[in-house]
Amino acid sequence: MNLAGNIGAYDPVDFGRRAPAAADTPFVEIDHERMSRNIARMRDRAAAAGVGLRPHIKTHKSVELAREQIKAGAAGVTASKPSEALVFVNAGIRSITLAYPIVRSESIDRLLEAAAAHDAELLMIAADETSVVALADAALRHRAVLPVLMKVDVGLGRIGVSPESGAALCLADRIASERGLSFAGLLSHAGHSYAAKSSQDLERIALQEANDLGALGDRIRARGIDVSRISVGATPTCVGARLPPGITEIRPGNYVFFDVTALRLGICEPDDLAFSVVSRVVFRNERYVIVDAGSKTLSADHGPHSTGGSGFGLAISVEPGPASHVWKVDRLSEEHGFVPHEGAPLAVGTLLRIFPNHACATIAQFDHVQLSGSEGTRVLSVDARGCVT
Amino acid sequence: MNLAGNIGAYDPVDFGRRAPAAADTPFVEIDHERMSRNIARMRDRAAAAGVGLRPHIKTHKSVELAREQIKAGAAGVTASKPSEALVFVNAGIRSITLAYPIVRSESIDRLLEAAAAHDAELLMIAADETSVVALADAALRHRAVLPVLMKVDVGLGRIGVSPESGAALCLADRIASERGLSFAGLLSHAGHSYAAKSSQDLERIALQEANDLGALGDRIRARGIDVSRISVGATPTCVGARLPPGITEIRPGNYVFFDVTALRLGICEPDDLAFSVVSRVVFRNERYVIVDAGSKTLSADHGPHSTGGSGFGLAISVEPGPASHVWKVDRLSEEHGFVPHEGAPLAVGTLLRIFPNHACATIAQFDHVQLSGSEGTRVLSVDARGCVT
Repeated sequence: MNLAGNIGAYDPVDFGRRAPAAADTPFVEIDHERMSRNIARMRDRAAAAGVGLRPHIKTHKSVELAREQIKAGAAGVTASKPSEALVFVNAGIRSITLAYPIVRSESIDRLLEAAAAHDAELLMIAADETSVVALADAALRHRAVLPVLMKVDVGLGRIGVSPESGAALCLADRIASERGLSFAGLLSHAGHSYAAKSSQDLERIALQEANDLGALGDRIRARGIDVSRISVGATPTCVGARLPPGITEIRPGNYVFFDVTALRLGICEPDDLAFSVVSRVVFRNERYVIVDAGSKTLSADHGPHSTGGSGFGLAISVEPGPASHVWKVDRLSEEHGFVPHEGAPLAVGTLLRIFPNHACATIAQFDHVQLSGSEGTRVLSVDARGCVT
Repeated sequence: MNLAGNIGAYDPVDFGRRAPAAADTPFVEIDHERMSRNIARMRDRAAAAGVGLRPHIKTHKSVELAREQIKAGAAGVTASKPSEALVFVNAGIRSITLAYPIVRSESIDRLLEAAAAHDAELLMIAADETSVVALADAALRHRAVLPVLMKVDVGLGRIGVSPESGAALCLADRIASERGLSFAGLLSHAGHSYAAKSSQDLERIALQEANDLGALGDRIRARGIDVSRISVGATPTCVGARLPPGITEIRPGNYVFFDVTALRLGICEPDDLAFSVVSRVVFRNERYVIVDAGSKTLSADHGPHSTGGSGFGLAISVEPGPASHVWKVDRLSEEHGFVPHEGAPLAVGTLLRIFPNHACATIAQFDHVQLSGSEGTRVLSVDARGCVT
């Protein structure tokens, strides 16, 4: 795998698909074949390792794509916020992990009602006393038993118990003893893997995560508590490292599309990139061509978790004829992208396909995107766009 | 004016409003009194200088707020993209400048139809031959005469003719001679003012802009072409510098809310900040409190035009009792913000009010926001959210 990914190293031809229909720009286009291949490969990786697959839908926020993932073998999905999970429960997805700490009991009332109505399984997480109390209160009010995974911080420094702490054991006891809750296992997100500098880094992070969770799981089992699930998930470790023994489930999200961050990490090739923004050159000055995709289209995210990345994406020409180069999107205004043309004959009106740094952030700007494949192009709804509560 | 704005220099009390209703978080709250004061002050600045005011609605994307600006004396509004302008034309706003280069004639068909139906005035811009051809074609097809402002690049390096170039004169001739178009004047955006390091910088940029446009206007007039409008607009120069002689109109946008970028530039005070995101602490680790507002809420924009700025906003506690500090939002995941707590007693569940670095980017994430004032709190629609084509 190539972790020294620089722009010049890529052949623009590998970025693929050349001529979208003339249309109002900018728009998002998802390459169905590439996406389906990405989905199939992850299914195969999970199957070969004997672990379950529960993709995070924050990457696409689409019911149809969640169904495609489940049809390809996913055991269920993962969501970020209660309102986001609600969309998928209401659409009939039968098993959802809500991988977000609930600290206000009422915030999941609608979700629990919908889950009961649709007979959907909901797995919750807890990382401290407050979230246990909130979940227990909700369970009591809804006469439900909520399976709870204890969230473990394996290095991102965000949310979770420290795996070697006494507090982790106390919290496990607390979850297990709470009426209305059942201890379902351990869950982590190695988001710091987005800052990896080499494939060795990815291997080391994945192994450390599995070891930390395994050791904590053993200490919890020694207290007589069943640890049935050990769930990990971040695309860099799930794709760029071996799936280590001991884990029971993976929850990657980004792999379905990949993006320039994945390319930078060396965990995908240009022809795996299934998500792009088609934009138009609207002006050319001495240094830049200006395209009609800015921060309100691409997002201004350099990459996940503020872990690095530069620029805002890579651009290729989608005009007929051989693409001559891959350009970096250097700067953004709200409705403009600045692409240094380096003297290339990119005329005003030219369509440029931009692969963003962070596809999950880009799709969140759109209500609808285009899904293009051998069967033609059609509109795909971004059903959970805007679901931030 | 204080351009050395650092966090410690602000008294959290000046950031205002303390106790929003308990609700699902995160949500955007607009302080109606502060916003109305910002609107009135800009009206007064424009009136004192004898120039027209045509606010850019990309900051709020709200028909109701555009109407409030017009009621307060604005001559019309400015919009970024045809689909964005369309929302305001359809809502009955009677004069709109579409400050974006049109390079594909068909992209304004719906807008021109709507403008004809609503008897709305549309002012267009052109920065090169391609946009003149596209506009002339549209005018011909719609049997309209489109007033066109020539876009001048005064230093941002984005879109516009160079003010001293011969090409600028040729383009003016071209616009003036084109059937279906009328030469309406000059338009510029000094977006590079967001990178100003001092109030002297802002004065210098504003004066240079007016001088460049004035000199170009004279050269165009010498060719027998009327230059009735000289339109400038960027909040830093419109607020932080004297409005120089020679201009006829200003088009600021951000001033309606202001944000941490404006604070950094020293062009507003904390109690001018009318736009904030109310978020909740969902976890506390050794270094950070984690809030439920991430890049899908705040946006990951450090500030306009990639001109600088650090972090993602400033946070204060909105709990009853004296706020003890102003914290910086240091990092973002998609649904999480990292706020270094520096040992402060910020418990899980605490509400933090976050003033984002770039309000225009944040509101674009929301369909609805809360408008709070002495009359209570109500929902405000972000009518043109998602209008990027």
